[in-house]
Amino acid sequence: MKRISQYPILLLLVLTAFIQTNNSNMNLESRFTILTLGVDDLEKSFKFYHDGMGLASKGIIGKEFEHGEVVFFGLKNGMILALYSKDNLAWDSRLKKDKPSSTEFSIGYTTRNEAEVDSIMEQAKKAGAKIARPAHKTFWGGYSGYFQDPDGHLWEIAYNPNLIPQN
Amino acid sequence: MKRISQYPILLLLVLTAFIQTNNSNMNLESRFTILTLGVDDLEKSFKFYHDGMGLASKGIIGKEFEHGEVVFFGLKNGMILALYSKDNLAWDSRLKKDKPSSTEFSIGYTTRNEAEVDSIMEQAKKAGAKIARPAHKTFWGGYSGYFQDPDGHLWEIAYNPNLIPQN
Repeated sequence: MKRISQYPILLLLVLTAFIQTNNSNMNLESRFTILTLGVDDLEKSFKFYHDGMGLASKGIIGKEFEHGEVVFFGLKNGMILALYSKDNLAWDSRLKKDKPSSTEFSIGYTTRNEAEVDSIMEQAKKAGAKIARPAHKTFWGGYSGYFQDPDGHLWEIAYNPNLIPQN
Repeated sequence: MKRISQYPILLLLVLTAFIQTNNSNMNLESRFTILTLGVDDLEKSFKFYHDGMGLASKGIIGKEFEHGEVVFFGLKNGMILALYSKDNLAWDSRLKKDKPSSTEFSIGYTTRNEAEVDSIMEQAKKAGAKIARPAHKTFWGGYSGYFQDPDGHLWEIAYNPNLIPQN
């Protein structure tokens, strides 16, 4: 009888260990899925990325929800580039909408060679991007240029000999 | 002789077609490789993402270059999360350093269930993140919370039944 009465304690210990193990697997993993850009004008930004930069999308969706209008561009490896109005991003995150800032982040796009940098910088210019810094040899041995999307979000198009896209 | 003299024109046509095809492959592809966060204090942000959030990194590298100090966190699928000082990002992109703004973008991290959202929000809080909006049921049928890193950069940890991580 004594042994049987110990079962619940044993079970509790096993369960606790399982939950702890499970929790340790529930920390942040080394990945993220979506990069959401806060934009002033969803239609304008959609045209820039879709018509100008050639990214595929179903267009503005989520109109059935208040605060729901969003654009998703499917990227490789199951990733998503999203556009969402800054007003809605502020509402959804319960933050105050801030003034635009271009030095918060940059999106780094790597190329297979220098010519590809020039070509994409030219594509961005035609799409209406502002060239922040034309393509140039970099101090770290590469070749890169910076452009800004309609909201000032920064992209760096870079040839890095140590970081060649594999597909 | 007439046929031979046509060869250069034919060659030119083929070459032109090849170059055009090649150029059309040099537009932006649906991917990016690096998300670089502009930070105020590289050491502090490194500690947040490395010690607090558990992302693996070799630490601050590039000290041999002026403006070179950077942190790389290797993510899945060959992606990189980078930390670079806002001063250096402004210098490198030739932009004026702006005041902080938290509504420029958010990083979306998807989970396998709601408990994982709670767990990662708790991890972030312990790491020193500011909870912008605690985890809650969302209008689009999911469950999510927002936190801010030491520079106010926004992360959304979200369970989306239509977007379950595959590995």
